[in-house]
Amino acid sequence: MEKHGAEGRERSYRKAAVRRAEILARAIELFAERGVGASLRAIGEAIGVSHAALRYYFPSRDELLVEVYRAHEQGEYDDPPPDSVSAVGVMERSAERNRAIPGLVELYATLTTDALQGEQHPLTRDFVRDRFSVVRGHLADRVRAGQRAGAIAADIDPDDAASLVIAASDGLQLQGLLDPEAVDVRRALALLERLLPASPQVDQHDRA
Amino acid sequence: MEKHGAEGRERSYRKAAVRRAEILARAIELFAERGVGASLRAIGEAIGVSHAALRYYFPSRDELLVEVYRAHEQGEYDDPPPDSVSAVGVMERSAERNRAIPGLVELYATLTTDALQGEQHPLTRDFVRDRFSVVRGHLADRVRAGQRAGAIAADIDPDDAASLVIAASDGLQLQGLLDPEAVDVRRALALLERLLPASPQVDQHDRA
Repeated sequence: MEKHGAEGRERSYRKAAVRRAEILARAIELFAERGVGASLRAIGEAIGVSHAALRYYFPSRDELLVEVYRAHEQGEYDDPPPDSVSAVGVMERSAERNRAIPGLVELYATLTTDALQGEQHPLTRDFVRDRFSVVRGHLADRVRAGQRAGAIAADIDPDDAASLVIAASDGLQLQGLLDPEAVDVRRALALLERLLPASPQVDQHDRA
Repeated sequence: MEKHGAEGRERSYRKAAVRRAEILARAIELFAERGVGASLRAIGEAIGVSHAALRYYFPSRDELLVEVYRAHEQGEYDDPPPDSVSAVGVMERSAERNRAIPGLVELYATLTTDALQGEQHPLTRDFVRDRFSVVRGHLADRVRAGQRAGAIAADIDPDDAASLVIAASDGLQLQGLLDPEAVDVRRALALLERLLPASPQVDQHDRA
């Protein structure tokens, strides 16, 4: 009886996990196509899941949005760029992927805006803050590698450079979506790449 | 009778304009203190204006948000930095001002996110797109001035540089608000300033 109950519980956990994954997959499709400007109720209607069921698997809109974004990023982590790729190169690849999914940049913008309103969106704030921290860490490692290889000036702070590269990439994608004819994301990021390896600090030190 | 009516109308226009300005001023205070995560109704309650009155002066939440942001920016336009200030320097000043008003960066993030959902927020989309275009134009002029003065490499595209500087400034302020201990906005912007005047294109050309 005990055992049977445990088996039954396990089967129903598995079923719930599968259902949750199905809902997530449909939400990912929906956001990629139509963006995220919708309530949890409207999302449920669009993907054909009752509001009650949706709330069972994703207690809040915030949690669903974070999970959709996390699922997308997992794809990037599963296929990381080789170590030889620079910090800017990593963001160029990411921007290239995002170009195919405009809803994703919208989702990202929504998450970061919600994160700023942290009192109303504590889960989103923690997710976005942690994510920035992790990505800064990864990129700073690549800046350090560039410095060891002599490609990036040794006195550039790797954390500052990492923050700058992320900011540039985020901001350029946003401008590019709003005005694709006026903003060339790829070229502007290439400009940063070209600038980072420079060693103008010699001049700066001379002047100081 | 006709004349009296016209006078009456003019007086009531003036009264309406004053009332609108009062409401705007209170909304500006509110957003600076508490951010924008609120419906038009909640904003009305917080600033002590009935929902009906608020809707009379600002037909939509979008219009109120845009007007609040516009009013803030007017302050910057009224006191523009001297021509000698670089493109990055202009954004450093702006970031410095914003530091005192965290609600403003939140408002800005809300506007840009809404702009991405342009079908639901056409007014915001047009405002944000036009604003980016105007700021890019101003900054590109300063990059060109830097190039004429020999401080910035001549083969850098001024529009790309302008987009990059705006993106970096926007993204850094957001990261800085979320994690002030991990991100030094001023130092990371200074890094971009240091990189922009460089002329690494000599190396790049040699390699090509």
